[in-house]
Amino acid sequence: MPRFFSSILLAVLLHGVSDEAAAQNGTRARDLGITPGVFSPGTLNAITDVKGVRVGHSTRHDGDSVHTGVTAILPHGDVVYHNRVPAAIHVENGYGKLIGKTQVDELGEIETPILLTCTLCVWKAADAMVAYLLADSTMENVRSLNPVVGETNDGYLNDIRARPITAQMVQDALSGASGGPVVEGSVGAGAGTIAFAWKGGIGTASRVLPSRAGGYTVGILVQTNYGGILSVSGVPLGRMLGQYAFKNLIDDGSSADGSIMVVVATDAPLDSRQLKRLARRSMAGVARTGSSFSNGSGDYAIAFSTIRVGSSMQLLNQELSPLFQAAAEATEEAIYNSLLAATKVDGHLGSVEPIPIDALRDALELRDR
Amino acid sequence: MPRFFSSILLAVLLHGVSDEAAAQNGTRARDLGITPGVFSPGTLNAITDVKGVRVGHSTRHDGDSVHTGVTAILPHGDVVYHNRVPAAIHVENGYGKLIGKTQVDELGEIETPILLTCTLCVWKAADAMVAYLLADSTMENVRSLNPVVGETNDGYLNDIRARPITAQMVQDALSGASGGPVVEGSVGAGAGTIAFAWKGGIGTASRVLPSRAGGYTVGILVQTNYGGILSVSGVPLGRMLGQYAFKNLIDDGSSADGSIMVVVATDAPLDSRQLKRLARRSMAGVARTGSSFSNGSGDYAIAFSTIRVGSSMQLLNQELSPLFQAAAEATEEAIYNSLLAATKVDGHLGSVEPIPIDALRDALELRDR
Amino acid sequence: MPRFFSSILLAVLLHGVSDEAAAQNGTRARDLGITPGVFSPGTLNAITDVKGVRVGHSTRHDGDSVHTGVTAILPHGDVVYHNRVPAAIHVENGYGKLIGKTQVDELGEIETPILLTCTLCVWKAADAMVAYLLADSTMENVRSLNPVVGETNDGYLNDIRARPITAQMVQDALSGASGGPVVEGSVGAGAGTIAFAWKGGIGTASRVLPSRAGGYTVGILVQTNYGGILSVSGVPLGRMLGQYAFKNLIDDGSSADGSIMVVVATDAPLDSRQLKRLARRSMAGVARTGSSFSNGSGDYAIAFSTIRVGSSMQLLNQELSPLFQAAAEATEEAIYNSLLAATKVDGHLGSVEPIPIDALRDALELRDR
Amino acid sequence: MPRFFSSILLAVLLHGVSDEAAAQNGTRARDLGITPGVFSPGTLNAITDVKGVRVGHSTRHDGDSVHTGVTAILPHGDVVYHNRVPAAIHVENGYGKLIGKTQVDELGEIETPILLTCTLCVWKAADAMVAYLLADSTMENVRSLNPVVGETNDGYLNDIRARPITAQMVQDALSGASGGPVVEGSVGAGAGTIAFAWKGGIGTASRVLPSRAGGYTVGILVQTNYGGILSVSGVPLGRMLGQYAFKNLIDDGSSADGSIMVVVATDAPLDSRQLKRLARRSMAGVARTGSSFSNGSGDYAIAFSTIRVGSSMQLLNQELSPLFQAAAEATEEAIYNSLLAATKVDGHLGSVEPIPIDALRDALELRDR
Repeated sequence: MPRFFSSILLAVLLHGVSDEAAAQNGTRARDLGITPGVFSPGTLNAITDVKGVRVGHSTRHDGDSVHTGVTAILPHGDVVYHNRVPAAIHVENGYGKLIGKTQVDELGEIETPILLTCTLCVWKAADAMVAYLLADSTMENVRSLNPVVGETNDGYLNDIRARPITAQMVQDALSGASGGPVVEGSVGAGAGTIAFAWKGGIGTASRVLPSRAGGYTVGILVQTNYGGILSVSGVPLGRMLGQYAFKNLIDDGSSADGSIMVVVATDAPLDSRQLKRLARRSMAGVARTGSSFSNGSGDYAIAFSTIRVGSSMQLLNQELSPLFQAAAEATEEAIYNSLLAATKVDGHLGSVEPIPIDALRDALELRDR
Repeated sequence: MPRFFSSILLAVLLHGVSDEAAAQNGTRARDLGITPGVFSPGTLNAITDVKGVRVGHSTRHDGDSVHTGVTAILPHGDVVYHNRVPAAIHVENGYGKLIGKTQVDELGEIETPILLTCTLCVWKAADAMVAYLLADSTMENVRSLNPVVGETNDGYLNDIRARPITAQMVQDALSGASGGPVVEGSVGAGAGTIAFAWKGGIGTASRVLPSRAGGYTVGILVQTNYGGILSVSGVPLGRMLGQYAFKNLIDDGSSADGSIMVVVATDAPLDSRQLKRLARRSMAGVARTGSSFSNGSGDYAIAFSTIRVGSSMQLLNQELSPLFQAAAEATEEAIYNSLLAATKVDGHLGSVEPIPIDALRDALELRDR
Repeated sequence: MPRFFSSILLAVLLHGVSDEAAAQNGTRARDLGITPGVFSPGTLNAITDVKGVRVGHSTRHDGDSVHTGVTAILPHGDVVYHNRVPAAIHVENGYGKLIGKTQVDELGEIETPILLTCTLCVWKAADAMVAYLLADSTMENVRSLNPVVGETNDGYLNDIRARPITAQMVQDALSGASGGPVVEGSVGAGAGTIAFAWKGGIGTASRVLPSRAGGYTVGILVQTNYGGILSVSGVPLGRMLGQYAFKNLIDDGSSADGSIMVVVATDAPLDSRQLKRLARRSMAGVARTGSSFSNGSGDYAIAFSTIRVGSSMQLLNQELSPLFQAAAEATEEAIYNSLLAATKVDGHLGSVEPIPIDALRDALELRDR
Repeated sequence: MPRFFSSILLAVLLHGVSDEAAAQNGTRARDLGITPGVFSPGTLNAITDVKGVRVGHSTRHDGDSVHTGVTAILPHGDVVYHNRVPAAIHVENGYGKLIGKTQVDELGEIETPILLTCTLCVWKAADAMVAYLLADSTMENVRSLNPVVGETNDGYLNDIRARPITAQMVQDALSGASGGPVVEGSVGAGAGTIAFAWKGGIGTASRVLPSRAGGYTVGILVQTNYGGILSVSGVPLGRMLGQYAFKNLIDDGSSADGSIMVVVATDAPLDSRQLKRLARRSMAGVARTGSSFSNGSGDYAIAFSTIRVGSSMQLLNQELSPLFQAAAEATEEAIYNSLLAATKVDGHLGSVEPIPIDALRDALELRDR
């Protein structure tokens, strides 16, 4: 065993793997010196650095069997149906129940906020969002509406078969959405998720391009519930700790399955085709954390611009590469943030620990000293 | 005005345009000598000619404001989740709320029956189907399920904003599904639909290939709710009667909008890629009736084989052309059947008449004498 | 046999099926009263009604074994690489060798003219176009170029294995391209093609939208080389004359195979996503003539706007339906024009007659009298 | 500056950056302890570990201005047209000239070998391959053939505008293809390519699944010509050496552009849909090396099974995850192999050095000690 690996195992033994306190203290990736890529984050290092974007969570932790929720992402504070924004949905692996894709593909825009929730909850969540939006006085004559709802499967910690999402929770997530700091970890749609066999959840990050690349902001929000062979900023933590996918094919280990939902927001004037390209790049960030997009992992990215349909010409193709890089690196960081903020959950079929932060810190220090 | 056109107008004046009786008497396209294409229909000239396929309707006509329903299509009589069939969804124009597409794309199979219903009802219908299917004793450990639910917008005849579909209706459509003759017209998901400004609805047809083309059966079921410039077996009925889309750009007329859902069933051993090709051909049948797939028309085809996943090798590409032709011509005929069977409905925002059958009969006779 | 059918057979007997004279006399569909759809054509009823569009043909008829050529379509008179236009390629059935698609998909624009030629000639044609374009003085530093070249298979009349296209022919088609009337029939890329077992070729048509729909022009150019069960403006000519696909499965008949290339030009400001939608609608026109897009038929549509990239905001989605209708009906008419203009060719493996124009005229008169 | 980074810079100063000798000595990633992922390579750690697969190179280094070539990959030793194999092409970023995609999409199979070459050479290469294949005595009646040819742009080291590929080179690559070890580096289609501003080229690797995952082999061959922020097995070498993309937006640096072609071979019985999924996973390997798939990077993966069409049923979806992981990790390793094997080239517009192997070795040792 390389000395690097053995040092990490020692650190885990010394510090233990449960680390709720650290997470509650708000350790984020950047606090550990993890700075994926080359661009700088925005003020909050959150999707809400994209001006106008709002996030709302509604979380349900009921005893040991219900740990789930709803996370709402709004492109702006107005009625989306009357103020549509260009959008696109990228499917990296379509083993999922995401609602709303064909219309977004066809029309290149979203006409509702975006919701994230648990797998078997998407239909109730979509119906509840439609009811809530149609009740608005400006929506009286609307007879067609295309809700966009993504999900990952929290069925290990959450009694998903009960579909424990209520219309009120959807309404709360939507009406409570705001700009400013975004709560991360075991909250909203991340309440019951698992990533790399540690507790996953909601994470966020952002990048602001240099002014000579247009100065645009790219914001990311993730719901992490996937697996693979975890690498954190190049540190092969999964293998170090003997917790990684496909190990079972050799001796035994965690599953590669699960899913990730990525939401990409930007204030760059992009059309739907360009946003689809941007959304796709988020998956480079996912790949760098150790996913190979296993069969059972439903991996999607939903991207939107906050520049409303019909109000601006889009960028030229050759201006897009820095945005692509920003999406990839901010996604990688948002994933780390989701892991670092998540806290231990005792749930429906068992308990899941958070990532061992001190061990990770030691590993990073060992490598970079 | 050509004599042909004026004769038709005379026929309409003589016979009137309301023709519920004829529809109730079960006039189908073939009774009028309308035989699109070159292949022969199966015994029932219905999707249920494909052995094992079952169809169930649940219809709700409540006073003047609710006219909607659910139509269920099952590939066989067993639990679909445990007996998956290859499937594919073709999107001709994605302005619709169809549920379940990305997983069908990715995995190439369906794991639930297919439902058709009204636009704003898809989420309730999907949730209800999931609840119903999960309650089966063999489904106890299932935590992921991908319902496939399509829709068209019956919001003119139906108070669609109330989303008047119940879990019971979904259950009834599923549990009541059977082989044998399929009820057509203003029934199930076709209760409140409109096509070419006449009453649309459910229609079905089938083709059986000659034995030297494999002897396979292709069955079609449509939910017609679209528009355009109606042509019936080459007779330009829409223009003859002055009722066609885009007329308003010249003087005024009906809308091209609306949608069509096509379900294609076959007993040919096809994989998902081949079924996607087959599904696409149904749109040639739609085009021949006069649609140009307007912006607002959500036009989808869902195709499946009844030969279960993993139980047979598929046909070679070069064997597919007769199946393609069968799908196109049976879809055209199923559309005519939906129009001929539909009956007048007084609904939420007005009334819609059925297609004038006697006028059509006269027009066909004039042309073919 | 219906009287209608027998009358047509009589007409064929009286007039004969070869009708080169009529074609040379320039009979077009509209001269026979064939006016698909509801909108009006432009001045020339040709793709060149879209201002700026240029078409050039280079034709090679060498003895009995070489009948092929090149047709070039240019969006405007400037260097396309420096003046890109939004574009999209729709694949109805991808059994073809079309060159350039992935870059058009990704970047949403074309950077060269479009060429049509014979199947096994596309690579030589692409290489020759690249050489010709790179030789321009403004192109000195260009090291990447994405030629768009489509094809259909003229291998029955043309010795296609010899790939009898020269760099000079490509250069001639490009440099000789001009606005104004477009030569149709057995010319350019249509020199050796076959459609519905009659001689196919190049055809064109256009539509001008009413001013309240924006007044835009849609122009179509087709290279017809496909089959099916020919219907001309609703007249089932293929079945009347006993010449149609799949007949061989019952007794014997013509093949459904072959292909069609459609080029769609417009002066409407559309982006690539919208142009893909527009391109797709051309296939409704193809379907109405009797194609079911057989396995062996490579059916593609390439659409472009003449409004250059970055110079205008695009239309809103809800403004597109009249353009869709225009594309469908102009494609149908362009196909008829290709058939009517084509002349008999004695070729590599046999001879092919033109469509019997007098019989068609009689059939149309019988129907419409 | 972290000590880790400064140590590397020192190593570069000590060893120098040119390292042709090492490459010529055949240093591969595994010799440096670089072992991406969890599965074991095959005997040769090459695409030719997939039984039957053959690779041939034809290389042209002419003075300072021509450095290019052709690499041929054959699924087996028989005539491919008569012994088709299932195949799929994944487009990660379609800014490229790849030939043959639409037919592979539609029919799910390849009917020729695969060629890789330089960007502006693809059309000549395709035409030459068609000529060569049609000359076979078994191909006398073939009038349609779909060559698959990919490329990357070697226009910095190679005078690409001259399109310096000959029919003889294509023929040599095809006829000389064989099993056994694959020559890597500045050879064949990799003769003039650049990756991460170092010399790129051809690389290969493989994985053999554990027997309880089916024991299948996945083989990868890459043509590396892309950029980004190089990370080697988690070591951020690009940033350490100050050579990375987007640096110019902050001060200045290398371009992220360029492209990668990946060929994925397997003996697992997969259909085209499944092979498309497999091909896609190779891009996770690309992402881990530091690409964010910049606008100008044409990134494609072509996957095929060696199990011939119609000779076996495919695996079930749930059996695929280990294959996905294998494709991702073998691609990552093949890329490192391409960089390690490539040698300095003095070319058309300048010179390009190979990756500094000793510095990389030191960095890896520092991290892992």
